[in-house]
Amino acid sequence: MSADDSFPIPETKVLAIASHVVYGYVGNTMATFVMQSLGCEVAALNTVEFSNHLGYGQAKGTRATAKEISDIYEGLKNSFLDDFDMMLSGYLPGAASVEAVGIIARDLKLKAALKPGSFFWVLDPVMGDNGKLYVAEDVVPAYKNLIKDADLILPNQFEAETLSGVKIVDMETLKEAITTLHERYRIPHIMITSISLPNPEGTASLSVVGSTFTSGAKPRIFGVKIPVIDCFFSGTGDMFAALLLVRLREAVNAMEGLMQKAAWVSDDDVEATELPLAKATEKVLASMHEVLKKTKEKRDEEWNKFQNRVTGLGEDDEQTIRVVKAKAAEVRLVRNLGCLKHPDVRFRAEKV
Amino acid sequence: MSADDSFPIPETKVLAIASHVVYGYVGNTMATFVMQSLGCEVAALNTVEFSNHLGYGQAKGTRATAKEISDIYEGLKNSFLDDFDMMLSGYLPGAASVEAVGIIARDLKLKAALKPGSFFWVLDPVMGDNGKLYVAEDVVPAYKNLIKDADLILPNQFEAETLSGVKIVDMETLKEAITTLHERYRIPHIMITSISLPNPEGTASLSVVGSTFTSGAKPRIFGVKIPVIDCFFSGTGDMFAALLLVRLREAVNAMEGLMQKAAWVSDDDVEATELPLAKATEKVLASMHEVLKKTKEKRDEEWNKFQNRVTGLGEDDEQTIRVVKAKAAEVRLVRNLGCLKHPDVRFRAEKV
Repeated sequence: MSADDSFPIPETKVLAIASHVVYGYVGNTMATFVMQSLGCEVAALNTVEFSNHLGYGQAKGTRATAKEISDIYEGLKNSFLDDFDMMLSGYLPGAASVEAVGIIARDLKLKAALKPGSFFWVLDPVMGDNGKLYVAEDVVPAYKNLIKDADLILPNQFEAETLSGVKIVDMETLKEAITTLHERYRIPHIMITSISLPNPEGTASLSVVGSTFTSGAKPRIFGVKIPVIDCFFSGTGDMFAALLLVRLREAVNAMEGLMQKAAWVSDDDVEATELPLAKATEKVLASMHEVLKKTKEKRDEEWNKFQNRVTGLGEDDEQTIRVVKAKAAEVRLVRNLGCLKHPDVRFRAEKV
Repeated sequence: MSADDSFPIPETKVLAIASHVVYGYVGNTMATFVMQSLGCEVAALNTVEFSNHLGYGQAKGTRATAKEISDIYEGLKNSFLDDFDMMLSGYLPGAASVEAVGIIARDLKLKAALKPGSFFWVLDPVMGDNGKLYVAEDVVPAYKNLIKDADLILPNQFEAETLSGVKIVDMETLKEAITTLHERYRIPHIMITSISLPNPEGTASLSVVGSTFTSGAKPRIFGVKIPVIDCFFSGTGDMFAALLLVRLREAVNAMEGLMQKAAWVSDDDVEATELPLAKATEKVLASMHEVLKKTKEKRDEEWNKFQNRVTGLGEDDEQTIRVVKAKAAEVRLVRNLGCLKHPDVRFRAEKV
């Protein structure tokens, strides 16, 4: 067997519902390739088709309507092509689409009801960031309704606050937010993908914080600290989600019998840092840190080249600068597959 | 360097314009992953978004209009994202789309005019097969106009006949068709992807036949015979196109100075079987034969399982049988990357 043929997980069919961009890596364009490279069969249902991500300051393209999303799923069903093991949902263009995806997910869950653990839904509730919504207001209640059926949600800090109603300012409120999400919505697994809290040492650091609930819906919280790379990248949330889907399945598959348990919830005696979700997160962050470090090096090279070539840029050139920066910072994915396939774990989960 | 990080070609940006299916592998869904796996940065502009390919007897989804295709390209240009090294165009939904893609290709060619060889267009004139058109009549003249600007076209036998006006029944008419395409449309490279001629030995065999013209637009024709795999697969034309794009660039890159020549046309003293197009084709067919052999094995397993599970199927179940067969024959791509990356060449180009 050559290195190419070794994959971390058994054959896995994933329905991926998110955006498509022609150039660059966000949404399904990121997630599809990541999951395929790790051996998944990915059915990419694209909710938008845009020329590029919105970090460029402009884009052209179209959004799918809720009906178009539902129709495609009907087409899949008509051809007996709805035998998915997992689902990953990301950006959805409006409340009606959120509802349409809820109907799809519940249909897949229902079909799997007699075989616990045979279908698992990873939901990224894309709504906003840094204190701001970037979807319409009515998307928030639609998501609050949707997440009740998800197995794992991946909100960022702002989205976790929006869904839980708890403003996260310290460790206590962080625990409160996670507890609320577990208890109110009965979500088995939660992963907050970026937490930035005032740091007593004054050093820049970013954490991800996760939890798998116990049989009594109590949280088991762990966190992983990662060094900050000083650059804005697009699509990293989608990369995180795609990698986590694969690595969680891998970690669950390694635990005798866990794959046959509803929502893959570990027994109550499993410690937070020993959860498959924690083990998976360590690998995901290792891969991401390597890819983004390499991306940052290339990004700096390109940006320096541009600055040396073009002189005398003024305020009118703001859009040009924005575009050049966005392009230079596109994640270097295709040629860094080794980082995805063979993560060198260095950041460990700690109990919170 | 791990095996994952070794690629046959230098960094290459490809604009891929073709169809997208959610489930399975045809069009861009096939070509994108193949090219990415071999190290290309692929910008996938999807001309349709369907649940599945048409071999299932039904599909749901939407077609992009010519304006939507043009708009996306405008979006790319606005973000300075039109720095493509190569373009691959496949299925286009109607004559207006064919024209829109012509405008895109000519724009990219014009931009590259001062740097010969810096842009190369591989065009698959998707119109029909086995004596039948499956596009509207007005698509034919649109393609006749389009191919004049392509560097390499990949018609099947029927499409080669339609474009050249020569019915291919033996070696003489095959040569005549290729000569006509070179002379009338000034197409530098031609690859007829499936030729089936009466065989004196009576054994089933399929050939692909290609040619790169000389400075005087004379053909240099080679053929490669491959054993037939007794099964209908979808997306093999798209797989062929994607692999050939990569392998041709690899073979051209290996020839000193050829990448800087217009349309990568070899000097007149290069024999047909020594053409980069011939060398590339040998590798492509090796990869494809391996992947399709593995696909056929899995397909037979699945089909047998279905037959053992379901008994008493009658005529009313025709559509069920069709769907099960189509699904079982989906190309096993993701887990057979080794075949794509490391082809074991066994079928050699011969002079025709």
